[in-house]
Amino acid sequence: MTAYDNIVAHERTSWALSQVMGRLGWDQETMMPRGAAEQRGEEMAAMEEVLHARRTDPRLGEWLEAATAPDAKGEAILRHVRRSYTRNTRVPAALAAELARVTSVAQGVWAEARARDDVAHFLPTLTRVIELRREEASALAENGALYDALLNDYEPGISGDEIAAIFARMRTRLVALREKVLGAAYQPAPMKGEFPRERQLRLSRTLAEAFGYDFAKGRLDLAVHPFSSGSGADARITTRVAENDPFNCLYSTIHEVGHACYEQNIDEGYRYSPLGEGVSMGVHESQSRIYENQLGRSRAFTGWLHGQMRHEFGDLGLDPEGFFGAVNRVQPGHIRTESDEVHYNLHIMMRFDLERALISGDLQPGDLEAAWNDRFLRDFGVAVDRPSHGMLQDVHWSIGLFGYFPTYALGNVYAGCLMKALRKDLVGIDTALAEGRPTVATEWLTAKLQRHGGLREPRDTITEACGFEPSEAPLMDYLEAKFSDLYRL
Amino acid sequence: MTAYDNIVAHERTSWALSQVMGRLGWDQETMMPRGAAEQRGEEMAAMEEVLHARRTDPRLGEWLEAATAPDAKGEAILRHVRRSYTRNTRVPAALAAELARVTSVAQGVWAEARARDDVAHFLPTLTRVIELRREEASALAENGALYDALLNDYEPGISGDEIAAIFARMRTRLVALREKVLGAAYQPAPMKGEFPRERQLRLSRTLAEAFGYDFAKGRLDLAVHPFSSGSGADARITTRVAENDPFNCLYSTIHEVGHACYEQNIDEGYRYSPLGEGVSMGVHESQSRIYENQLGRSRAFTGWLHGQMRHEFGDLGLDPEGFFGAVNRVQPGHIRTESDEVHYNLHIMMRFDLERALISGDLQPGDLEAAWNDRFLRDFGVAVDRPSHGMLQDVHWSIGLFGYFPTYALGNVYAGCLMKALRKDLVGIDTALAEGRPTVATEWLTAKLQRHGGLREPRDTITEACGFEPSEAPLMDYLEAKFSDLYRL
Repeated sequence: MTAYDNIVAHERTSWALSQVMGRLGWDQETMMPRGAAEQRGEEMAAMEEVLHARRTDPRLGEWLEAATAPDAKGEAILRHVRRSYTRNTRVPAALAAELARVTSVAQGVWAEARARDDVAHFLPTLTRVIELRREEASALAENGALYDALLNDYEPGISGDEIAAIFARMRTRLVALREKVLGAAYQPAPMKGEFPRERQLRLSRTLAEAFGYDFAKGRLDLAVHPFSSGSGADARITTRVAENDPFNCLYSTIHEVGHACYEQNIDEGYRYSPLGEGVSMGVHESQSRIYENQLGRSRAFTGWLHGQMRHEFGDLGLDPEGFFGAVNRVQPGHIRTESDEVHYNLHIMMRFDLERALISGDLQPGDLEAAWNDRFLRDFGVAVDRPSHGMLQDVHWSIGLFGYFPTYALGNVYAGCLMKALRKDLVGIDTALAEGRPTVATEWLTAKLQRHGGLREPRDTITEACGFEPSEAPLMDYLEAKFSDLYRL
Repeated sequence: MTAYDNIVAHERTSWALSQVMGRLGWDQETMMPRGAAEQRGEEMAAMEEVLHARRTDPRLGEWLEAATAPDAKGEAILRHVRRSYTRNTRVPAALAAELARVTSVAQGVWAEARARDDVAHFLPTLTRVIELRREEASALAENGALYDALLNDYEPGISGDEIAAIFARMRTRLVALREKVLGAAYQPAPMKGEFPRERQLRLSRTLAEAFGYDFAKGRLDLAVHPFSSGSGADARITTRVAENDPFNCLYSTIHEVGHACYEQNIDEGYRYSPLGEGVSMGVHESQSRIYENQLGRSRAFTGWLHGQMRHEFGDLGLDPEGFFGAVNRVQPGHIRTESDEVHYNLHIMMRFDLERALISGDLQPGDLEAAWNDRFLRDFGVAVDRPSHGMLQDVHWSIGLFGYFPTYALGNVYAGCLMKALRKDLVGIDTALAEGRPTVATEWLTAKLQRHGGLREPRDTITEACGFEPSEAPLMDYLEAKFSDLYRL
């Protein structure tokens, strides 16, 4: 076996093991008996130990020095493996273990703090997590750029400065847009009523199939926080149900279907290799967002959905235009996960600025609450009324996810680019959406992006799919056009 | 860290990983999307590769040479680890890999052959599996006793000759009993009717709880072939439903509850060690069988169950005594898994004799069908009408499970001993069963047996629990008394 062959064989097993990890995570959120949490922690830790040993296997280092790639696919594989090996061998084992230990406890502390609205309870833990992540970033960073080193785990190839520049251009336009929209004379009404759980779930399945999700290679279950997991022939999705708010369930489903279609539609030849999964968090989010928003919340598609919902639930008290408005209502609110297309990115931007400052040391954890509340009031025009509606609302920082938040907004930016390119290629897209055939979009996305998995770098993945360099302009143009139209500005 | 500490730490991770394997197996039979089978095969193979490497880790050999146990628990741990290390290092890696490869394909070939009643289609595969298992047994056997070497994987400490002696004594009495019972003037009637699926499942949950199964540390799902899986805080069970035969569902549930209670009730201090799971297949089966038969099919318990079923399904057309008869009807049949308490062990004995002869070389695979059919006619008085009702009915041999069948009957023998001891200690057991409180039996079994997990050798586990050396006599006495009474002999 050549060094390259050894790497491919090694990665084949690692890929399968990381799928097993995904399966355990899925089980934990959907099926696991409540008394099994502690034991599951041990099972996950054992898997993590095995995977870490494989990622830092010294033989991998030797093979990487000797390996030559036979083709473009091989080059991409070596790029992924080299990045992972470098990343994982740079962090001292003791630090990796301490980070795993601290973050596994921290999530529980955060949950308690959030339930009690008690920032002080969370602060010592948060401080420790930040210390450890800064230490890890120092080990990883080649040029002293701590935040960029963390970002690199989720979105390789982009820097904090680049993201900051994109966000700065977006923020001005978003703030202007939200002011216009909130001040508009016409305000769409919300949809009211009770929507039985079983019917919401049945419609969820219909929607998943309409978007091209393959139930032979996945399944739909309930979870407290919807997520997707797995890849290839086993890519599962979850959703949740609130009987007075069917959009929660239906759009969670469509969002997760976007993630899962990406994983299902990667070329089978890439399976069992580092190319056999979505290339980055940002690109992944571009798929979930384009399904959920650009496609799923379009006037054309909501027209079809309106009919489906009347069929399932009877009279909705809204005509198609009113229904389109109810789906897309803009309202300032404290909670990121409940926010609309106009506000969502503003939520992300403040988190990005705050976490960058926490990692650089410009902001101390003890000053985070005041900084959050100031910024929120400035961007949203509403005061934070309690910490669980403020800095305690998201799990991310407790589990050490610094550098992750901006990939959500980057996903929106990429989705904007992709939708622009898709509209150019598929002139009949609105007709297809109005007829309940978003699969034409999935087919286009598969051919242009999804099937390539990890073959190209994240930014190149978008550029190749769109035929142009990504920027925030298409997203902003889309948002301004959509909401000016909807709000009759 | 001492050598002993190193072993304990190593085994902790291995235990957790083997739990993960169990979870994957559970998922495969209950939740996995149908298109994921091939990918799941790769995931299982990756886990198997990791576990095999851990079991044969050369460091384990060094630690075992140096280790001294601090206490009885430690001695038991070292005994388990030494047995596993010796077993796994004796088999050449190439042979282990070939066995895994051949048996993974063989199951599919067997399933095709069974579906088509085509013995010839299965014979080349079966021949190859036997060759490989004989080769493995040669590598494992210390004294040339091939079958005993295989048996040792499932029931350490007992030889084929010992089992043969027990079975010989049982067979005479069983054949005599079945003839008396089948010739009796009184024959109980079967229960007839339609029993809705959801109600069967609801009653299954009631039964599981009545026996002491803890749903906080497990769950109940549907599977084609019921099984239990997992241990400690995550011990899951499955059942199946036939709407015209509720006993299939209810007694499958009780059987699996027996297995799962054993795993749930092991002392928490043994978890994450080789002591933290059932000690052998035979002892495991003693738990499932005593729950299902000695307790679950007793006149006292069926009296309570009769009331539960009337409550759930309405009039059953049977009084309590007729219901007791319907639960315990004796009928000669081709299929092991559908057989009654009188016939079951006869099914096992013929498989035991045939597989011993296959492994010794006294019986050639090509002569198996004739040997099976001759023996079946002799013991059951009925001819085999087709291979799927004969030698193709069980999956075991296709996946290389030679030495496994006798543990089923050994479980029955052990259950007979345990029930004798339990009746002596708990004089009010029939009252408790008649009131739907079999938990008193679970409490007794926990104290006497279940909590000890793998602390003692299998036979010692039974001896310590019963206060006497196990033999077939208590089981045979119980069967003769029960069926003489029921059939009014």
